[in-house]
Amino acid sequence: MELWLTERETDHVLTKCRIDRTLYQGRSKYQHVAVVESREYGRMLVLDGIVQTSIRDEFIYHEMIAHVPLTIHPRPEKVLVIGAGDGGTIREVLKHPEVKRVCHVEIDEMVIEVSRQYFPELAGMLDDPRVEQHITDGIQYVKEQTAAFDAIIIDSSDPLGPAEGLFTEAFYGDAAKALKPDGIMVVQAGPPFYLPKLIRSIYRAIEKSFPTVRLYFASIPTYSAAPYAFVLASRRPLDDIAPRRELANLRYWTPEIHRAAFLVPPFLKEMLEIDG
Amino acid sequence: MELWLTERETDHVLTKCRIDRTLYQGRSKYQHVAVVESREYGRMLVLDGIVQTSIRDEFIYHEMIAHVPLTIHPRPEKVLVIGAGDGGTIREVLKHPEVKRVCHVEIDEMVIEVSRQYFPELAGMLDDPRVEQHITDGIQYVKEQTAAFDAIIIDSSDPLGPAEGLFTEAFYGDAAKALKPDGIMVVQAGPPFYLPKLIRSIYRAIEKSFPTVRLYFASIPTYSAAPYAFVLASRRPLDDIAPRRELANLRYWTPEIHRAAFLVPPFLKEMLEIDG
Repeated sequence: MELWLTERETDHVLTKCRIDRTLYQGRSKYQHVAVVESREYGRMLVLDGIVQTSIRDEFIYHEMIAHVPLTIHPRPEKVLVIGAGDGGTIREVLKHPEVKRVCHVEIDEMVIEVSRQYFPELAGMLDDPRVEQHITDGIQYVKEQTAAFDAIIIDSSDPLGPAEGLFTEAFYGDAAKALKPDGIMVVQAGPPFYLPKLIRSIYRAIEKSFPTVRLYFASIPTYSAAPYAFVLASRRPLDDIAPRRELANLRYWTPEIHRAAFLVPPFLKEMLEIDG
Repeated sequence: MELWLTERETDHVLTKCRIDRTLYQGRSKYQHVAVVESREYGRMLVLDGIVQTSIRDEFIYHEMIAHVPLTIHPRPEKVLVIGAGDGGTIREVLKHPEVKRVCHVEIDEMVIEVSRQYFPELAGMLDDPRVEQHITDGIQYVKEQTAAFDAIIIDSSDPLGPAEGLFTEAFYGDAAKALKPDGIMVVQAGPPFYLPKLIRSIYRAIEKSFPTVRLYFASIPTYSAAPYAFVLASRRPLDDIAPRRELANLRYWTPEIHRAAFLVPPFLKEMLEIDG
């Protein structure tokens, strides 16, 4: 039997990955959750049919969503991570010795349970004593916080299904209020080549509440139509995006790659209608 | 009727693009040649079932294969381009006012004819008076040249079929001989994430004849498993890969993106077993 996982990148582009085994399939209150063993990328977490992470290249996404904001911030002691049920982002956040507390807010407990069982390389740090876990809606959680965090990392799925409310102007306003005055936020945003409208709308919505908004990019093999975009926002105007600290033993992030990630090719500036 | 072009990225990953129309299909002496209209990427040139270029993002590949070597070279007057039957690389090479002559060597005349008809945006500069066209085997052509060129650009298909001999130690030795003492060569090499062995072998083979070999990268949406690699080689030891000149009105290449393209993430250094 040949098994192929078909992923719809756009209405007109599909990616198919050969699957050796389906290890888990279930339906939570929020979404369909699956774990598959793929021949090319190793084990993959699939939510509502969309590949979230793969063992072979997960480190690129997780290093870039965590280390870019946290090395720009002068002293990130208290970090809020929304989503990130697989644990990969938490693992990277905890590599910063400055970090004293990570509030991890994930709406779907099944994603955490499945990740603990099938992705110990990612979820292994979820029990670290610095991590405070909240199984709840990130939108509601953020509304109730004021000047509480140095950094907020939005590591959600795409804005369809449970994550939709995390991509709104109202939510970004609440996130700005939940940050301390020099707080930084980062949002995973997707491939601009396929989703220019989405990325423009995230950028514009964040601009309403933050004086500095910047895009940065990474090349992630499992996510098609590279590069993949992140949106960084700072409550204090930010002149310099250079990292303030080094980190050892990483596989993608370096201080040079961090700086280069903020370069926006002219065609993307035009496509996204940004100056930055 | 739904038409999908299926491309085999590896034995375990396929990409499918929705096709509105097949505009041309033929078989030359060397390969199957097709032109299709795709919904997502516009018109695409397909050789032996592999997408070579698409109207929507061809400029990324063509700018990066041409402008990186030509802006590093102090004065590129005579340039040899091998392959490049669609004309996109020639169009970019001719943007350098220093360039007085382009020798264009393509083995398959059908690719040029089809590109003239279906890709005027790419092939439009093939009739420029600075271009000297040779329909012949690049391997044989290069063997007969000595200290003739400032730059050689190998814009071939992948090393299966007609381009196979362009990826050998013997060919790179001949290419070194065909270059002037400060000559520079660039080779399109593919995605390292899928083809690490191929890129290692190109790198090692080139090292035999050139004192400086460097990898550089670009994110090209139609080529999966980003980033995509190019190998640059210099006959004179090269300390600095910075561009010596600016170029206006490009859509991907900028002096900053040029420099950043040479950054190799730690995992790729390890995967490719290179220090650079």
